Amino acid sequence: MDRRKFVRSAGIGTAVAAAATVAAPAIAQSMPEIKWRLASSFPKSLDTIFGAGEHFAKRVAALTDNKFQIRVFAAGEIVPGLQVLDSVQNGTVELGHTASYYYVGKDPTFCFDTAAPFGLNTRQHNAWVHHGGGLELMREFYKDYNCTSFLMSHTGAQMGGWWRKEIKTPEDLKGVKMRIGGFAGQVMAKLGVVPQQIAGGEIYPALEKGTIDAAEWVGPYDDQKLGFNKVAPNYYYPGWWEGGAALTLFVGLKAWDSLPPLYKEAIASACDETTNWSVAKYDAQNPRALRELVAAGTKLQPFPQPVLEACYKAAQELYAETSAKNPKFKKVFDSWKAFRDDQILWFRVAEGTFDNFMARLSAQNRL
Amino acid sequence: MDRRKFVRSAGIGTAVAAAATVAAPAIAQSMPEIKWRLASSFPKSLDTIFGAGEHFAKRVAALTDNKFQIRVFAAGEIVPGLQVLDSVQNGTVELGHTASYYYVGKDPTFCFDTAAPFGLNTRQHNAWVHHGGGLELMREFYKDYNCTSFLMSHTGAQMGGWWRKEIKTPEDLKGVKMRIGGFAGQVMAKLGVVPQQIAGGEIYPALEKGTIDAAEWVGPYDDQKLGFNKVAPNYYYPGWWEGGAALTLFVGLKAWDSLPPLYKEAIASACDETTNWSVAKYDAQNPRALRELVAAGTKLQPFPQPVLEACYKAAQELYAETSAKNPKFKKVFDSWKAFRDDQILWFRVAEGTFDNFMARLSAQNRL
Repeated sequence: MDRRKFVRSAGIGTAVAAAATVAAPAIAQSMPEIKWRLASSFPKSLDTIFGAGEHFAKRVAALTDNKFQIRVFAAGEIVPGLQVLDSVQNGTVELGHTASYYYVGKDPTFCFDTAAPFGLNTRQHNAWVHHGGGLELMREFYKDYNCTSFLMSHTGAQMGGWWRKEIKTPEDLKGVKMRIGGFAGQVMAKLGVVPQQIAGGEIYPALEKGTIDAAEWVGPYDDQKLGFNKVAPNYYYPGWWEGGAALTLFVGLKAWDSLPPLYKEAIASACDETTNWSVAKYDAQNPRALRELVAAGTKLQPFPQPVLEACYKAAQELYAETSAKNPKFKKVFDSWKAFRDDQILWFRVAEGTFDNFMARLSAQNRL
Repeated sequence: MDRRKFVRSAGIGTAVAAAATVAAPAIAQSMPEIKWRLASSFPKSLDTIFGAGEHFAKRVAALTDNKFQIRVFAAGEIVPGLQVLDSVQNGTVELGHTASYYYVGKDPTFCFDTAAPFGLNTRQHNAWVHHGGGLELMREFYKDYNCTSFLMSHTGAQMGGWWRKEIKTPEDLKGVKMRIGGFAGQVMAKLGVVPQQIAGGEIYPALEKGTIDAAEWVGPYDDQKLGFNKVAPNYYYPGWWEGGAALTLFVGLKAWDSLPPLYKEAIASACDETTNWSVAKYDAQNPRALRELVAAGTKLQPFPQPVLEACYKAAQELYAETSAKNPKFKKVFDSWKAFRDDQILWFRVAEGTFDNFMARLSAQNRL
């Protein structure tokens, strides 16, 4: 590092340190006016998944007396939906809100921060990130991409997507051109699916034109907005590749280091708040959307067990193959898998039996 | 109101209003040094449920450059564990962290903010509070108690407690003296149980001495700390009265109104953050605790279906009876029940089938 560069960055550090230790005058210094930009991977029409970015920005402003302003841009406005990470990495924007698994082309390790096939549900993912070492593991990995990260929003367990044709056996998957993101696409490929990675806003035209035969997005509330039911009749569940899909807030390391302590705390709090907000919003709005979709003719059905079993087998093979050749992947996978196995054991006890008793009452119309 | 009192309280309002509208000097005014006290209903030994209060206080300090300091007191230090609400109501402390259902003796409507029998799981409760009108309904109800409220921490689905004798049929419940909180105690009473309301730190001696025959608290991690396995061998699940138990932060209305806007926002954010923190901590730590309990001889088993069915029938009767005579209860119950029924319908689809497929793999040792 040349001397001028050193002095410049050291200067930033000193100013921050001073703000943290001096009493009264520190207040003004610790709350400077700052304007940042956040690139979202999602279209404006999706008021939960894109809205999470806006909710986050609003909360950061509220926590800083409106001194820290974040402007949120939808997919394609300043950055294409699937290049959000790159734009944070190269400093085009300070913040990116995206699904980490969009970047498995760079390294499959990216999958774990969103969702990996037959993985953690929403609560279990939260626990892995916040109390299971997940956040530290992913942040270590993200250093190579010039970023730090926060868990920011969840979708809950996703649906298995919209299919033109019914899927009755694993054979029926062969040759299906499907929009499916991330590592799951590689699992599907083992079963003959031709996976495509397409940003949210561009799926409908592809499905309408017949460029693809199937598409998964999130769940009833978003899928209804995107209109998939108009072009594919079969709606399957569960999305075994996303038992709980989490989104990540990427923060450029240089931008992060420049922030006063209070603003760092505001970002951390606003991320947690946005996570709760998004899960609650999806949960509250999905039931009505699903009811409307079914009333309008959508054929709702579970994947047949042999299809789920074939997918599980393919996923296990891919985990083993990828672990064997990628040590970064193996490091995260080993932590994640051990945590998952323990969580599922525990969730079979109180959570599972409670939920299943209530589900049975519901199925018998006894609620 | 006499004139001096009026001027005094009007003065507070004016100062706050000024702080919110004037620009530069407002920063210092909006972040005055404030010290508050929080009374917790829980003993210090429970680092999640009591620790939530401390985590909250730490986050509020971090979000206010350490200007807003909250000191947290365990049950019995300044207020008895079951009188936390009263101490906020009468202004002894500004904040109370407690289970609202401890106060069903005042009005059964209090139950809904923590958990009601055969109710919402953790995610569903979050959704009801944040996107289903639950927060607004409870805050309206709490006005009569001079408080406002925030959802602050969850335990997840609870266990069905520790029983000296096995429960094989509904008949076996008759005459059992059980520590069980809230509205659920009244359901149990319909089946012959003699319910007792006892604060967390006092349950163990009661069970040891034989003053009670059974006790429910939270789940493996806490229950192990409290040592119940040493005095009762049978550990049942699920705690049908707490499919997800939420705790409430009560804030005295006068104290709340005196806060500058930034501090109100800090409290709101810190509550959400603490909620995530507590659920993740319980989820991460319960599996190990349960394994250790079972290894040490605890007999883990589900309540027999006829017992759950009898309890469900008794709960339905109590809901109907209470709704018929208490309009406040009915108002909240009607919102809550409609929301619950919808949530369970939706959770049967993607969440339930995903969780059950993973549970089956776990049961078959195939994870």
